[in-house]
Amino acid sequence: MAQRYKCIIQYDGTRYVGYQIQKNGISVQEVIQKALKKMFKGQVILIEASGRTDSGVHALGQVIHFECPVDIEPVHLQRALNSLLPSDISIVQAERVSDDFHSRFLAKGKKYMYRVDLNLFADPFKRQYTLHHPYRMNLDKLQQALDKLVGKHDFTSFCSTKTIKEDKVRTVYEAKFEIDEAQNELVFTFVGNGFLYNMVRIFVGTCLQIADGLKEPEEIDRLFAVNDRNEAGPTADGKGLYLVEVYYDEQFLEEIKQAKN
Amino acid sequence: MAQRYKCIIQYDGTRYVGYQIQKNGISVQEVIQKALKKMFKGQVILIEASGRTDSGVHALGQVIHFECPVDIEPVHLQRALNSLLPSDISIVQAERVSDDFHSRFLAKGKKYMYRVDLNLFADPFKRQYTLHHPYRMNLDKLQQALDKLVGKHDFTSFCSTKTIKEDKVRTVYEAKFEIDEAQNELVFTFVGNGFLYNMVRIFVGTCLQIADGLKEPEEIDRLFAVNDRNEAGPTADGKGLYLVEVYYDEQFLEEIKQAKN
Repeated sequence: MAQRYKCIIQYDGTRYVGYQIQKNGISVQEVIQKALKKMFKGQVILIEASGRTDSGVHALGQVIHFECPVDIEPVHLQRALNSLLPSDISIVQAERVSDDFHSRFLAKGKKYMYRVDLNLFADPFKRQYTLHHPYRMNLDKLQQALDKLVGKHDFTSFCSTKTIKEDKVRTVYEAKFEIDEAQNELVFTFVGNGFLYNMVRIFVGTCLQIADGLKEPEEIDRLFAVNDRNEAGPTADGKGLYLVEVYYDEQFLEEIKQAKN
Repeated sequence: MAQRYKCIIQYDGTRYVGYQIQKNGISVQEVIQKALKKMFKGQVILIEASGRTDSGVHALGQVIHFECPVDIEPVHLQRALNSLLPSDISIVQAERVSDDFHSRFLAKGKKYMYRVDLNLFADPFKRQYTLHHPYRMNLDKLQQALDKLVGKHDFTSFCSTKTIKEDKVRTVYEAKFEIDEAQNELVFTFVGNGFLYNMVRIFVGTCLQIADGLKEPEEIDRLFAVNDRNEAGPTADGKGLYLVEVYYDEQFLEEIKQAKN
């Protein structure tokens, strides 16, 4: 009997054109679907994810779902799939879900992380995992800019013009940074109910301009007013971006509230 | 006027056949020498390192030296070289040294690290930087085996038969492991006055057999007695190995003594 599964997956996006199947190269989706096809003796199994990730973007907690033709113990499914997948993709959790679970439609929120290498000369071990930005920054202004991003806004200025989505209103619950002294990194965290195409990367590109003193924190207010992608900062390189977690109930909102108090 | 420089370099060894120039692929040495040649308008500059590292092996603190045809501020040399080097090699420090400095001949000791990924399923972000070994281990026996490696010994059993060195006696000052809970890694550290070809990797291959219960810690004593490479454990994969530091004075011996007390 057919059974639906939800899996949490991790991938190093370096080698891929992105999560979603595309004509111009190898994608994470294609690789996982091929592994499933092998596992189920040629039967095609389509997978659905919580959303796309771009070329070079990584995932620590992407969520996918799919239908298996037979019911298998989740841990066996996980082991079989991992043995068929390349070493830069891993199934970190598998569970049975009911037929009405949907990784994209039911997602209530997402968390992204963006890592910035602050070393004067780029760390050779981080070249595919961080943006190198070794400049002196005004962290107070960075904090002010991030604070302005929080809330319900029309994020047209922070969305690639290549999007097909019309509604650009989203709610950002959390926009913060931490300095990881041991790693000499600046790490951004963004939590929201949904993110538009390139939104986190344009947040980072714009916020770094403000931190660098090229623009003032009030630039964020102006961008909310003009609703024009061309006015915002550059799209920061995908290699620094990580999809950390996808939320399927509202519990994460409580956690954010408590963390603020 | 010509000036000799000592540089500390880091590299991600994934893409290289090793440190030293070889016919079968691209090496770290070749890439740095090409950058120097470009910098000095076609003049060939040979570099010498503290020692070789194998294919896939990484360096956090490899030391090289070379002669520049003109005297340049070390920080300018560093910046110019880094701008010419690929992003997986970095000059982390440069300094002027006298003409009698030699990175290999004057090395008094070296520190190596070996990282083991303990996750049940291999972490996709560590596939090129750790050995995946997710088995339950006897850490007491591992400690006993490592303790036996410390001291002055003939390490013939722990040296590749491809070596050209006749004298296999070396002194190991420190052989230890730590469990990094946050990373879910076992990290070995070895400090010695010199290491033979594949020595650290054969240490790790043999010690993991003992930790896995395949052999007893006394196996180390037996290997010191038989002096036969074929009797020791496998050569652990180069991708988990890091040359961490090269010592040019005896100060490190004091630090090890103090750490033990």
